[in-house]
Amino acid sequence: MIAFADIDYMKLALDWAAKGMFITMPNPRVGCVIVKEDRVIGAGHTQPVGFDHAEIQAMKDARQRGADLRGATAYVTLEPCSHFGRTPPCADALIEAGLARVVVACSDPNPLVAGRGVARLRAAGIAVETGVLEIEARELNIGFFARMQRGQPWVRLKAAASLDGKTALHDGRSQWITSAEARNDGHWWRARACAVLTGIGTVKLDDPQLNVRAVETPRQPRRVVIDSGLEIDPAAKILQGGGAWIIAARPNPDKEAQLRDLGAEILMLPNQGGKVDLPSLLQELGRRQINELHVEAGFKLNGSFVREGCVDELLLYLAPSLIGDAQGMFNLQAPASLDEQRRLRFHEVKQIGRDLRILARFS
Amino acid sequence: MIAFADIDYMKLALDWAAKGMFITMPNPRVGCVIVKEDRVIGAGHTQPVGFDHAEIQAMKDARQRGADLRGATAYVTLEPCSHFGRTPPCADALIEAGLARVVVACSDPNPLVAGRGVARLRAAGIAVETGVLEIEARELNIGFFARMQRGQPWVRLKAAASLDGKTALHDGRSQWITSAEARNDGHWWRARACAVLTGIGTVKLDDPQLNVRAVETPRQPRRVVIDSGLEIDPAAKILQGGGAWIIAARPNPDKEAQLRDLGAEILMLPNQGGKVDLPSLLQELGRRQINELHVEAGFKLNGSFVREGCVDELLLYLAPSLIGDAQGMFNLQAPASLDEQRRLRFHEVKQIGRDLRILARFS
Repeated sequence: MIAFADIDYMKLALDWAAKGMFITMPNPRVGCVIVKEDRVIGAGHTQPVGFDHAEIQAMKDARQRGADLRGATAYVTLEPCSHFGRTPPCADALIEAGLARVVVACSDPNPLVAGRGVARLRAAGIAVETGVLEIEARELNIGFFARMQRGQPWVRLKAAASLDGKTALHDGRSQWITSAEARNDGHWWRARACAVLTGIGTVKLDDPQLNVRAVETPRQPRRVVIDSGLEIDPAAKILQGGGAWIIAARPNPDKEAQLRDLGAEILMLPNQGGKVDLPSLLQELGRRQINELHVEAGFKLNGSFVREGCVDELLLYLAPSLIGDAQGMFNLQAPASLDEQRRLRFHEVKQIGRDLRILARFS
Repeated sequence: MIAFADIDYMKLALDWAAKGMFITMPNPRVGCVIVKEDRVIGAGHTQPVGFDHAEIQAMKDARQRGADLRGATAYVTLEPCSHFGRTPPCADALIEAGLARVVVACSDPNPLVAGRGVARLRAAGIAVETGVLEIEARELNIGFFARMQRGQPWVRLKAAASLDGKTALHDGRSQWITSAEARNDGHWWRARACAVLTGIGTVKLDDPQLNVRAVETPRQPRRVVIDSGLEIDPAAKILQGGGAWIIAARPNPDKEAQLRDLGAEILMLPNQGGKVDLPSLLQELGRRQINELHVEAGFKLNGSFVREGCVDELLLYLAPSLIGDAQGMFNLQAPASLDEQRRLRFHEVKQIGRDLRILARFS
């Protein structure tokens, strides 16, 4: 039986899970709260890869406070793992500690877990409830679920536009349409992504660093550049510090060597038109354990991503202004009829400073 | 002193005022609630022109219920009138009835009243409080305030667009971008306007009736067409039933006579470019007691209204879809820099069916 209090404690566990927002990848963000006699005796969240999962952190926390775990209830936002990965299985640790009950928000989509964690707990005589705040828990790990279930990341395309849908003047100037608050908020979304992707057009025009600056994070997302013809200037800021992935379509051994010397990796993923094959790229990023991919590109690449069905969600900042004749958001050709408009649904709308932040999803 | 209960009763009075939304114009929508010993003993709202104001309705209501008005408190959303207009002054009626206290949301911007109603009540020994839910009360009569204070209507421009800011295909097809819920909601805004305005382009393309159908109303707003060259087809639906105002810039006596025979009135308001002078039109509409002007036009006329500073508020329905290369919302030329973008502020955002309804204001 699920009590009201179970929902409250699971909310708390979700808050704990959110503390891992920028650090757990490619693992999911998980939170755990341990409750005994209506008191929280321990709490924790997933640490960076190779370190503790949430359940272990919460049990350590309880023990440090001198609490007795026997007979307690654990609230976990994702099914406890049952396999030896980089760490031992959490289900076993919960069993050994003598917990009486485990409440789980959602089952683990990882085929190595997928119900086995819950089964293991039940086999040991622990009462298990599942599905408490399941939707919220899935949302928190939308990229991890996408990667586990379809082998590719959750793709979130960010754009900032005026109310009349303009993102830049015809010469590319785009500073500034939205407010500082909206731009800073954008960094929070970069920080939670495993990788931030842009196109060679934006690199040439704006020379962005594309890293996270406006919010604190111990981890920077991977930077990815779509650059079919390997035109990138070796002095581009996005190459600084190394680690960038350059996605190309036409080989150029000299340039490739030069970029590799700068610490970049080159992936050659051509389609039949001599451009980068975006669906193949998403598959490759899935293999490389990218959960959430954050796209910040220009009119052309935005259009390609939408046209090729490679976007899951728009993260759109709308400024309360009208610009007039200028660059739009997406290079999409004129449809033959309005039946061909690409449908989304509004997921969330929020005011950020003077702007609106809209999350809209394609399915 | 203003008590919490005063705010609650004023909310109720505002609800009553809203019942007059479609019928009181050119008078303001006013509500009145009369309270005695913590019980509502009467309530009412402004009736159509020439009939009772809210205070009189509320007192009649109280008397019909057998209540004694002496010593009661009246909550009125607008300062009671003090002059003989089409009806006798409400302030006098409240005094005669022996009310002890009157709580007023906002003072009347009508120079014939403007503080005199409150002064008259106070001179008669009635306790008067003002400013309770003042902003809400002004919002309800935003057009009446605009007309009284600057001699021209509040101009609300309605547009329906996709998330990428497109309102129609290049050939003009626009059926449908937003949902039936949003289109029906649009009729509520038409119904509360004194006049609905469109351009000859929209009349030629869509032949709209531009009347209120999706919500019930005993009164249809005046229909106004901007038609510089008097090109309108006498068979246009918008002329049916008579009463349309055709705003032109170039005389054409034969066509004018023909349109007059159909019950239309022709206003010749040319600017130096041979088009209709929009600022002069707004002055004229103010003289004609138009409080709220609802503009539903196309790309070109929308652009002219914005360019000439003739819009107060955008009523924008945004559909969760992307259309691509198509017609935008406003014909505005490319700005020289982003400093020239026209700034608004978001006033209200609401989900209507699957769409977003955004109210944004220029000041």
